[in-house]
Amino acid sequence: MSRNIYLNMKTLKEAKEILLKDCFFKSMLKKEEIEVFDSVGRVLSEPVTAKISSPNFHAAAMDGIAVKASSTFGAYPQNPKELTINKDAFYVNTGHVMPEGTDAVIMIENVNEIGVNRVEIDAPVFPWQYVRKVGEDIVATELLFPHNHTITPYCVGALLSGGIFKVMVKEKPKVLIIPTGSELVDPKKLEQPSNLKKGQVIESNSYVIAKLVETYGGSYVRNDIMKDDAEEIKKVVKRAADSYNMILIIGGSSAGSEDYAKAVIESLGEILVHGVTIMPGKPVVMGKINNIPVFGVPGYPVSAIIAFENFIGPMICKMLGTIEPEREKVQVEPTRKISSKLGIEEFLRVKLGLVGNRIVATPLPRGAGNITTITEADGIIKIPNNVEGLKDFEPVEAELLKPLSSIKNTIVVVGSHDNTIDVLEDEIRGAIGHITVSSSNVGSMGGLMAIKRGVCHVAGSHLLDESDGSYNISYIKKHLPDIKVKVVNLVLRDQGLIIPKGNPKGIRGIEDLSRKDITFINRQVGSGTRILLDYKLKELKINPSTINGYPNEEVTHMSVAVAVLSGTANVGLGIFAAAKALNLDFIPVVTEQYDLVIPERYFETENIKALLDVINTGKFKKRVEELGGYHTNKTGQIMM
Amino acid sequence: MSRNIYLNMKTLKEAKEILLKDCFFKSMLKKEEIEVFDSVGRVLSEPVTAKISSPNFHAAAMDGIAVKASSTFGAYPQNPKELTINKDAFYVNTGHVMPEGTDAVIMIENVNEIGVNRVEIDAPVFPWQYVRKVGEDIVATELLFPHNHTITPYCVGALLSGGIFKVMVKEKPKVLIIPTGSELVDPKKLEQPSNLKKGQVIESNSYVIAKLVETYGGSYVRNDIMKDDAEEIKKVVKRAADSYNMILIIGGSSAGSEDYAKAVIESLGEILVHGVTIMPGKPVVMGKINNIPVFGVPGYPVSAIIAFENFIGPMICKMLGTIEPEREKVQVEPTRKISSKLGIEEFLRVKLGLVGNRIVATPLPRGAGNITTITEADGIIKIPNNVEGLKDFEPVEAELLKPLSSIKNTIVVVGSHDNTIDVLEDEIRGAIGHITVSSSNVGSMGGLMAIKRGVCHVAGSHLLDESDGSYNISYIKKHLPDIKVKVVNLVLRDQGLIIPKGNPKGIRGIEDLSRKDITFINRQVGSGTRILLDYKLKELKINPSTINGYPNEEVTHMSVAVAVLSGTANVGLGIFAAAKALNLDFIPVVTEQYDLVIPERYFETENIKALLDVINTGKFKKRVEELGGYHTNKTGQIMM
Repeated sequence: MSRNIYLNMKTLKEAKEILLKDCFFKSMLKKEEIEVFDSVGRVLSEPVTAKISSPNFHAAAMDGIAVKASSTFGAYPQNPKELTINKDAFYVNTGHVMPEGTDAVIMIENVNEIGVNRVEIDAPVFPWQYVRKVGEDIVATELLFPHNHTITPYCVGALLSGGIFKVMVKEKPKVLIIPTGSELVDPKKLEQPSNLKKGQVIESNSYVIAKLVETYGGSYVRNDIMKDDAEEIKKVVKRAADSYNMILIIGGSSAGSEDYAKAVIESLGEILVHGVTIMPGKPVVMGKINNIPVFGVPGYPVSAIIAFENFIGPMICKMLGTIEPEREKVQVEPTRKISSKLGIEEFLRVKLGLVGNRIVATPLPRGAGNITTITEADGIIKIPNNVEGLKDFEPVEAELLKPLSSIKNTIVVVGSHDNTIDVLEDEIRGAIGHITVSSSNVGSMGGLMAIKRGVCHVAGSHLLDESDGSYNISYIKKHLPDIKVKVVNLVLRDQGLIIPKGNPKGIRGIEDLSRKDITFINRQVGSGTRILLDYKLKELKINPSTINGYPNEEVTHMSVAVAVLSGTANVGLGIFAAAKALNLDFIPVVTEQYDLVIPERYFETENIKALLDVINTGKFKKRVEELGGYHTNKTGQIMM
Repeated sequence: MSRNIYLNMKTLKEAKEILLKDCFFKSMLKKEEIEVFDSVGRVLSEPVTAKISSPNFHAAAMDGIAVKASSTFGAYPQNPKELTINKDAFYVNTGHVMPEGTDAVIMIENVNEIGVNRVEIDAPVFPWQYVRKVGEDIVATELLFPHNHTITPYCVGALLSGGIFKVMVKEKPKVLIIPTGSELVDPKKLEQPSNLKKGQVIESNSYVIAKLVETYGGSYVRNDIMKDDAEEIKKVVKRAADSYNMILIIGGSSAGSEDYAKAVIESLGEILVHGVTIMPGKPVVMGKINNIPVFGVPGYPVSAIIAFENFIGPMICKMLGTIEPEREKVQVEPTRKISSKLGIEEFLRVKLGLVGNRIVATPLPRGAGNITTITEADGIIKIPNNVEGLKDFEPVEAELLKPLSSIKNTIVVVGSHDNTIDVLEDEIRGAIGHITVSSSNVGSMGGLMAIKRGVCHVAGSHLLDESDGSYNISYIKKHLPDIKVKVVNLVLRDQGLIIPKGNPKGIRGIEDLSRKDITFINRQVGSGTRILLDYKLKELKINPSTINGYPNEEVTHMSVAVAVLSGTANVGLGIFAAAKALNLDFIPVVTEQYDLVIPERYFETENIKALLDVINTGKFKKRVEELGGYHTNKTGQIMM
């Protein structure tokens, strides 16, 4: 069993220089002539000069009468001049040819009609007043656009006006995308996700990369998924090197026993870089075969995207002679300290929102395997190689994945997760197009702390006060003594025991948790659900130390449900929605109160008012009830 | 003859509110189911929840061996633990199913192979180390994207991974575009621009607007060009109101006698707004017919674009429920005072460049009829209604039409225009992809003044010193005494008399300019060409007052040539390229020196070095020589 190791990892900057400096790809693209109408987004292969002038005759620039300016000299209010239509004055509209012998237009508002074909004017005009002269916009033979220019919709107007109906453009770089991996299944062939067998994975990277290739101006062919078979992959790559401008082998780029991308490229050509000190994206391979750039693209989806955007996309731009696309950058403040490895440049995905007068950045999970860490991100913070991490509230630059105005119109919700927040998000997007909701799950106490630190507009919380059975208010009084907040009920929801389908252990309730034949999975300290459990155990006088698995903690309802599904535990405490999601059974234990805690300073803002309006609609309540395990009898009520 | 007048002009803000508040267009779009692979750019018509979890099995997150964590407890370097492959340890690669009974992965780097199927480890691992648990990325039933969400390439990955292969999206708004105007010719039917007859204009607006409709997420049908016939247009609009989501009548929206857009809409439906206090774009008409929004789009190309981007595009977004696209904004400094009408919001097109440490904004011509004022623009400054104009060097916000990095890599050239600057621009785009040249034509003295004011990197100048026949240097010493500059020759060029084809007046040279039967067209005071003329007249002892037309000034070589072409004048002084452009004859008078004046502080910058490298290439010189009327024997020489 042979395994690759990374030799000579490069920094991002070094790797990009090696890749793009090596001008093997120069003038590889053919040219083609296309209609201007179809040219938007294409890149000129040669400069374009105008064939005709625009306007190509002297044209009236106003509606009015065309005159010879000299014939108006001497007119003034006390001594108006009379002109005869179609003799020394001619009605014209904007864009009309200036009649022979005329050189100025008098606006219709300043013309006094005094009889049949007779008009009077009471002020002189200068020559060429309100006339668009030949070539005012475009002069024949002048350069319209240099080569390597990308055609925009505006350009179409200038080209057509300059008499250019066809342009020579560079052919789109043809990219062959080869997804590899014996575990992969093509979604086009799978038809239904339920046809997926255990261990099979839906291949999605090639489709994402394909769309990115198009975005950067390339075209693509997607090869069928190939098994982890270096010899077979080699055959396909060898053949493709004759007819494509670039080849991407997705998967098999790291240092595993089945990671053949490097070997394939090495055997047919030359490796330029293997391994870059970035995260995600480290295992990228770059090489060339017959002067064709060939990449080994990492198989983790976020790694693949980062590798694409830093190397493959820029290579397409270099081939086309275009400027790399660029994201807007703004200063943001991380909501918490983030440590990062020295020597690695990290692409940290963050959620962003304008809270008070600062844009706060809440980090998303850092795993490269999770595509949702980039689909849910509003921005990316690049933590440089030579920095050990970010400090909380120290301003740092983020690249935006969404428009700034959209980030400014984001309601930042932090705290305990609940599925109705998703419904809320969806309803707000429908009702008020420009407002979005961004939620981060850090537990109920985490939500209150986020309010204390000023990093959210809304905290979701379900903290039970054991002493009186009330929710949230005593915690707020204790932990947020100096912050005025409002509390609005979102939902009442059923918490209960999540158990495997059919309840094989015959569990009846909390009282069974201390049974010797049962393993429990717990939630983390500080979560509302943990507090609820401890309260119930106390009530039932059960000593937690008698429960198998009590020390094993998960941090979300869903991970508890997953633990039950996978057999790691026999039972956990969580919400009905989590059980339902994984088709597990559920024994209700208590109906608890899930509230939104909102600082008063935001309570009257347009965005929060819109959010509260949505909560109070029948439509929202109906959708929530339909989820199951929820009750809306207090929904929208102000609890404090 | 009936003419419209603008009643009740609205401000931009008012007009947009009236248009978008009127929710007649709501839920007009149908839904359709499409493949996820084809969904990029489309807008979800309903929320999408995941069908399966991702991963949907516990998966190895590293290459290594899968173990039960508890079996590793107690291992340490002095007391390694031995494990048997395929019994209590299993080789796995990233992404593999975790074998039954295992719950952790040990990285291959930390595994010591000690014999056939025997490995040794010297540290314990925690449960779930390097394991991607079921649902870590996506949990079945969770909300992936809310409705009204626009699918990106990244989203395709999340959708496929969540088992979603088809999505319900909103149909693209179907827009009918009707170009109107009896003077218009369809470029698709014209074939060659030379087929254009006098007074005919190439129709280009509909193609620009069509591409903008697509950019905003709509689809379009382009109607044939219609003549200025209100009844015929009405028929087409009436029919279309049944089958389109929006109708755009291009042209005929202002207050001229053939401006029928308002009348057509009024007769079939209702006018919402006619006339907005913006420039360009004022004459836009907005109305509705059968709850379909119908626009009268101004015929001037920049007016059409501004009207589209402020009203029509936002309406498409509103229909789709998407967020309006937004341009990055930066602070810039206008290079000169710009006055603006109170009560009008002006969209001023500017060229931008980073000169020293400020981004300077040079205004482009303000006419709405010139498409090149927007294709050449790097940004737009919006001058509000209540402001009378901009002060020079007072920072103001500009919306960017190009990426900021591109603006930072722009070489700003100001001064006398010469066609070889275009060649230079084109050659630089080819040689160094990321550097662009932006040139503004203000005459030679204007260029030196731009250097004095610190608003350009390079000035193009051909100022003759009458006393010794030298160029530029004495002017620089006089006008830029405190600024260290370098002077590099760009070209020598032929100046001469531009005369009609065939020389009907039999002109032989400057000495004929005072002939009674000849009318001359002059250049403005301060231009290099004017200085040259006056020098030559002095030499020949001709009194300028004896020359017909001496007081009539034009400001560019091309406008002089146009005056000759159109018969306004019989002769003018200018460069060969201008005569050639309009197919006029040319009598050489003098070969003059056209230099680039470059402040020393920029001379060693990367961009200027690249520019000088290009000037010195044989390719540049060859292209310049091929233009005719140019000589490159001094090209690239440092003159000072």
